[in-house]
Amino acid sequence: MSQTGQPTALFELDRADHVRADPDALSELMGMRARLMKLHGLTPELDDNGCIKWGSLTEADPDAELVFLGLDGDRGCFAAVPKRPVQVQRGEFMATITRLHDRQFGIYAGARSLVDWHARHRFCAQCGAHTTIGKGGWQRNCVNPDCGASHFPRTDPVTIMTIERREEDGSRRLLLGRGLGWPGNLYSALAGFVEPGETIEEAVRREVMEEAGIPVAQVRYLASQAWPMPSQLMLGCTGVTFHEHIVVDRTELEDARWFSEEQVREVMSGRPGLFEAPPRYAIAHKLLRMWLEKV
Amino acid sequence: MSQTGQPTALFELDRADHVRADPDALSELMGMRARLMKLHGLTPELDDNGCIKWGSLTEADPDAELVFLGLDGDRGCFAAVPKRPVQVQRGEFMATITRLHDRQFGIYAGARSLVDWHARHRFCAQCGAHTTIGKGGWQRNCVNPDCGASHFPRTDPVTIMTIERREEDGSRRLLLGRGLGWPGNLYSALAGFVEPGETIEEAVRREVMEEAGIPVAQVRYLASQAWPMPSQLMLGCTGVTFHEHIVVDRTELEDARWFSEEQVREVMSGRPGLFEAPPRYAIAHKLLRMWLEKV
Ligand SMILES: [Zn+2]
Ligand SMILES: [Zn+2]
Repeated sequence: MSQTGQPTALFELDRADHVRADPDALSELMGMRARLMKLHGLTPELDDNGCIKWGSLTEADPDAELVFLGLDGDRGCFAAVPKRPVQVQRGEFMATITRLHDRQFGIYAGARSLVDWHARHRFCAQCGAHTTIGKGGWQRNCVNPDCGASHFPRTDPVTIMTIERREEDGSRRLLLGRGLGWPGNLYSALAGFVEPGETIEEAVRREVMEEAGIPVAQVRYLASQAWPMPSQLMLGCTGVTFHEHIVVDRTELEDARWFSEEQVREVMSGRPGLFEAPPRYAIAHKLLRMWLEKV
Repeated sequence: MSQTGQPTALFELDRADHVRADPDALSELMGMRARLMKLHGLTPELDDNGCIKWGSLTEADPDAELVFLGLDGDRGCFAAVPKRPVQVQRGEFMATITRLHDRQFGIYAGARSLVDWHARHRFCAQCGAHTTIGKGGWQRNCVNPDCGASHFPRTDPVTIMTIERREEDGSRRLLLGRGLGWPGNLYSALAGFVEPGETIEEAVRREVMEEAGIPVAQVRYLASQAWPMPSQLMLGCTGVTFHEHIVVDRTELEDARWFSEEQVREVMSGRPGLFEAPPRYAIAHKLLRMWLEKV
């Protein structure tokens, strides 16, 4: 139970975008019944089920900026922007994600990306003046009347892909890589940001060529996931190649290699195998599973 | 022929990301043979075939920031950042896109998004200090040693979707809408930004519910396109619904309605029909065509 006497579980949040542009509705929602996500910096308080804990707005710093996350029924749900940018270590983030309830991933991911963005955008990139929060946290506005620029939270599209090579005997191999400084013996799908001017499919081909020197024929989109480290939209794809010889880009990767279906299946079964699989909650895990299931 | 005596057509550009982090390679590429995209503000000079014209770096303002677009063979290709943010009217942008050669769309889209981003990010959003261009234009760095933030060009993912309703007699209807202030009698696919914390599929469902009050069952990704107005990644999807009653969000749309297969086919055939179709070069056009072809 939260401090306001309500259950803490919250599995659906109506983003209620019409409220954002309505200052009266917003301030009405900021009353006694409003919920505040319990965040320490960017790390949420979780209950034993991995559900995010919520308190009341009185728990926020009086001069903290508040972001409207959406409605739980008729109750407004908010998160407070940290006073200054928070550096979260990958280990701490992974520990949070591991404990977090699957069905609260989107709510946490959205809140975390938003408040982190606000903490890093207190000034106008166009003129250097201060900015103030607007539209319930879905905008920042420059205070300089000669500029008046509006700024919006960003989401960076990233492609992540399983690349398959078919052998002459009909068997299949999967291209996986290891980033510089990755823990243990983890191998995962290659990934990279979509650049201005590219389609998803072009970005997949460019990334696989850059990182592993492998030309990709077909590309197919499979699934997407939000990834709030800091604010990415992961675009899961699969591709086919007829090339074998890998040239690893050592500025990006420690290694990249082909794994057989049996090797991937063993690792994904949870038994100790040739490498460590990407964690369950990452889209890479889902992509490897889809590859095994020939989706 | 360009002023450097070379043909102006350029259909492939190797983004050569390894060059960006290599100052020596970059300055070598900035020599006599370098090409500069002929831009007036954000509008390109085009030849009679709709191909972008290129000049030499000497044509750039001596103190202009230069963005490295990539390699044409061993020649560096660059674009200059406008001195201040350029406001381009939709009509002017559409006129450019209409004339532009299909195979140069990506090159122009990337260059335009990049130089526009630089012109709007001369200051650090984190501390308000000045920023300087870095990595050949793929980064800006804060000059304040107490901050030192790096900033990267942004690409905003936007969903755009054809929503189909099947009648009991097996016929199909398509949901299209008209934005506020759209020209003529243009109807197109609904669209909206992916928000932090969402998947593509969730964003499609939320947008169609917000804009038209229609719940969507299945969602399927079809194709993507860069759209440099200012820097969007259009994610083309299709979805199925069993609901008929549309509730138009009048803050976003002038109208939204169902069209029959015959009505859409007539409009897409180029004959005068019930409405005007989205232009040939827009992904919406492709999505309507795919809907007719049952892709
Ligand atoms: Zn400003
Ligand atoms: Zn700074």
